[in-house]
Amino acid sequence: MSEKLKPAARVTGNRQDVWSIINEAAAASPKQPIVNMGQGFFGYNPPDFVLDAAKQALDRVECNQYSPTKGRPRLKKALSDAYSPFWGRTLDPETEITITTGANEGMLSAFMAFIEPGDEVIVFEPFFDQYVSNIEMPGGKIVYVPMHPPKEGAVKTLSAGEWTIDFDELERAITPKTKMLVLNTRDNPVGKVFSREELQRIADLCLKHQIIILSDEVYDRLFYVPFTRIATLSPEVEQITLTVGSAGKNFYATGWRVGWLLGPPHLIQYVSAAHPRICYSSVSPLQEACAIGFEQADAHSFWTTSIASMTPQNLAIPYSIPQGGYFVMVNLSAVQIPADYPFPPHVAHRPRDFKLAWFLIQELGVAAIPPSEFYTDANSHIVEDYLRFAVCKPDEVLEDAKERLRGLRKFLKKE
Amino acid sequence: MSEKLKPAARVTGNRQDVWSIINEAAAASPKQPIVNMGQGFFGYNPPDFVLDAAKQALDRVECNQYSPTKGRPRLKKALSDAYSPFWGRTLDPETEITITTGANEGMLSAFMAFIEPGDEVIVFEPFFDQYVSNIEMPGGKIVYVPMHPPKEGAVKTLSAGEWTIDFDELERAITPKTKMLVLNTRDNPVGKVFSREELQRIADLCLKHQIIILSDEVYDRLFYVPFTRIATLSPEVEQITLTVGSAGKNFYATGWRVGWLLGPPHLIQYVSAAHPRICYSSVSPLQEACAIGFEQADAHSFWTTSIASMTPQNLAIPYSIPQGGYFVMVNLSAVQIPADYPFPPHVAHRPRDFKLAWFLIQELGVAAIPPSEFYTDANSHIVEDYLRFAVCKPDEVLEDAKERLRGLRKFLKKE
Repeated sequence: MSEKLKPAARVTGNRQDVWSIINEAAAASPKQPIVNMGQGFFGYNPPDFVLDAAKQALDRVECNQYSPTKGRPRLKKALSDAYSPFWGRTLDPETEITITTGANEGMLSAFMAFIEPGDEVIVFEPFFDQYVSNIEMPGGKIVYVPMHPPKEGAVKTLSAGEWTIDFDELERAITPKTKMLVLNTRDNPVGKVFSREELQRIADLCLKHQIIILSDEVYDRLFYVPFTRIATLSPEVEQITLTVGSAGKNFYATGWRVGWLLGPPHLIQYVSAAHPRICYSSVSPLQEACAIGFEQADAHSFWTTSIASMTPQNLAIPYSIPQGGYFVMVNLSAVQIPADYPFPPHVAHRPRDFKLAWFLIQELGVAAIPPSEFYTDANSHIVEDYLRFAVCKPDEVLEDAKERLRGLRKFLKKE
Repeated sequence: MSEKLKPAARVTGNRQDVWSIINEAAAASPKQPIVNMGQGFFGYNPPDFVLDAAKQALDRVECNQYSPTKGRPRLKKALSDAYSPFWGRTLDPETEITITTGANEGMLSAFMAFIEPGDEVIVFEPFFDQYVSNIEMPGGKIVYVPMHPPKEGAVKTLSAGEWTIDFDELERAITPKTKMLVLNTRDNPVGKVFSREELQRIADLCLKHQIIILSDEVYDRLFYVPFTRIATLSPEVEQITLTVGSAGKNFYATGWRVGWLLGPPHLIQYVSAAHPRICYSSVSPLQEACAIGFEQADAHSFWTTSIASMTPQNLAIPYSIPQGGYFVMVNLSAVQIPADYPFPPHVAHRPRDFKLAWFLIQELGVAAIPPSEFYTDANSHIVEDYLRFAVCKPDEVLEDAKERLRGLRKFLKKE
C-alpha cells in the first residue's frame, strides 16, 4: 500500500480495545452459551410504553425525517418538564437543552465546542475509556487524577463510596491551560457516587479557576444513595456546568443513540453548534419515543421500578457495592491462575485483570470487563485484581452467573 | 462570561447557515402554510415493508441494545448482497463494509481516519456544505475546484450534465499534501452525474498522485441517466476509493441516521476505527429495518418505483434537469425584485439568490435553498440567479408549488 494512503495517527493505536478483546474471546469460548456480563447493555427490552411510542412515531411522516439539529421540540419540552424540578427552576427547552446522538456523541460535541489543541481536560481515574478518544479528537490533552480505592477492598465487601479523591492532588493538576473537568458520577466502572461535600469541593476549584464541568450523569435514574447533581449546587456552579444524560441508559435502550446536554445558554449554544458538524441531527422517531417515555414515566412508576429491579445481588465473593448504575466491581485476588495457563499474546502482556477475564471466559463461560482499561498504565495495578460485571441482565442470567462463578472455588488460593 | 469559558474557533463562525435562515424565514412567512421545498427531506413515509421491519425489530432485545461498532451483521450482509453485483465480485461484509450514523457521520469518520492537520482535500464547487466542517474538524484544508455551468442556463432548460470540470484546473489543484478528493455524484445541488469518461479522468489523476477518493453516492438509487460507480472502474481505482451510501436517502427516512461506507479493507479498517471514537455505534433497530429493506426491495420493485415517482415535473421556467437525486436548480434571472424591497441584514448582505429565496418565502409562501451557500464567496456569483427546489414531496405539494410559482409572473422583467 502506498505511503500516501496511510491513516491518521488518531486511529492507529496499536493496542486492541477491551471491548473487542472480550467480545471476541466470549465468541470463541469453549463454554457456550456464554454468560456475558461484560458490556453494559441490557438483557431485556425497554418498557412497553416506550416501545409502543416508538412504533407509533414510525407511522408519522415528520418523525421519519430529519430532526431539527438541536432535537425534536417534544423531547426538549419533556426533558425540561422532567429535569426542571431538580434544578428548582424552569429549564428553557430552546436554549438550555440540546439533543445528541447518544451521550457519547454529546460529550464529543462538548469537547469539540470548547477544546482547542493543547487545552487540558482533567479526568478522574478510573475513567470511561471513550473519554480519551473524545478529548484527543479536538486536540485536547488529558490530565489524570486518580481515585484511590479502599485498602480493605481485597478482603471485604465495601461501598464504592470509599474510593476517594486527594483534593491537593486535584488542585495540583490544574494549570492555566485547564479548560474542562469531566465528572463521572456515578462513575464507570467503580460505581461511586460523589457526596455533596466532594462535589462542592470540586465545584469550588472549578469556579476559582473558571473550568467548565462536564458532568456525565447517564446513570442518573439508578441511584441507591442520595445523589446530588453538581449543576444544582448553586447558580454560580450552574453557569459553568454541562450535564450529560442518556435515554439509552434511562430506558434500557443502549442501541437507540439518544442523549442530551443540559446547561446555561452560553455553553449549550456551542454544543448545539458542534453537534450538526459531527452527525448533523439525531435519530428522529426514537427521540419522539423518548419524549413520550419521559412524559409517561411517572404514571408507570417507571423510575422507582427501575431502581428496585437493579439492586445488586449477593455474589458470595468480595465486591464493591455500587452506589448507582449497574456495574459491580468484584475482587478476585484469591483466584490463583495456574502458572502454565496459556494466554494469547494480546492478553499475556496486559495486567492480571485481563488474564482473569480471559480465564473466566475460558473456564467458566462468564465474561466480565478488566477495569485496568480504565486506568493509565502507571496506575493499572490499582485494579488488577478486579473485574467489572454488568448486572443489568434478566434474573435467570444472573442466577446462571452465580452458579458458574462457584466453579472458581477450585482455583482459590490455599491459605 | 469569563474569557476562560470561550468556545473553540471551530464552532464560532459568524455567518448563519442557510438551513436555519430558510427554516426560520419559512416559519415566520405571512403566507402560511408554506410549501417547503427547501431541505431535502421526504414529504412521505418510508415504504410499509421497511416500517414493518422497524416495528418488528423494536420487539427484539438485541435490536434495542448496542450494535457492534462496525454495524449489525444482517445489514452488512444485506449490503454485500445488494452491492456485490455492481462491483462484479463479492464484497466481504466483515472487512469491506462499515456502518455509520448516517452518511454525514460516515464522511466525518473517513476524514478523521485519514486527515492529519494541514492535509489537503479537493472538493468540487458547488459542494454540499457539511463537507466543509467535516474536513475542517480533523484540521484538513479544503482546495476548491469549480464546476462550470452551461452558458445558456439562464434562458434554456438544460441537462445538469452540461456543468463541466476543467481538468487542467483540477490537476493544478493537486499538491504533495493532497490526501483525499471528494466526489459528489450525483452532486448536490446541481444534480449532475459524472460521465464514465469524466470519472476515469478523475480516477487517473487520483491514481497517479495516490489520492483517496471519497465518493458520496447517497442518491445511488435515483438516477435518470446511466450511472457509473467510480470504485467499479478498475481494481486499481477500487483500491483507493471509499463509497458512501445512505439508508435515509434510499428508503425515504432521512431521520433514521443509517449510512455506510464500502471500500478495500486497508481503508475501511481505519474508518471503522474512527467511527466508535465519534459516536460509538449506530442506531440498532433501524439498522435491522434497513437490512430487511435491502433484502426485500427487489421483491417490492422498490428501486424502480422510486425512480419513477421522482421524475422531475415541468416547472414552466428554465431549470437544470437533474440526472439523479431529487433537487431541481431553477433559474430565476428573469425575476425582478422591487428595488426598495426590505431584507433583514443577514439576507441583505448575501448574494442575490438569498434575496430571491427570502422574496419567494414572503411573497409566494414557497421555500427553496439559495445555492451560493454551496460555493466559496469568490464563486458564489455563478449561481446567484438559481434556487434549489427539493421535489421529494407528495404530488399535491408539487401542484401547490407550481400554482404558487405562477405568482412570479407579475415580477418578471419586461424586455
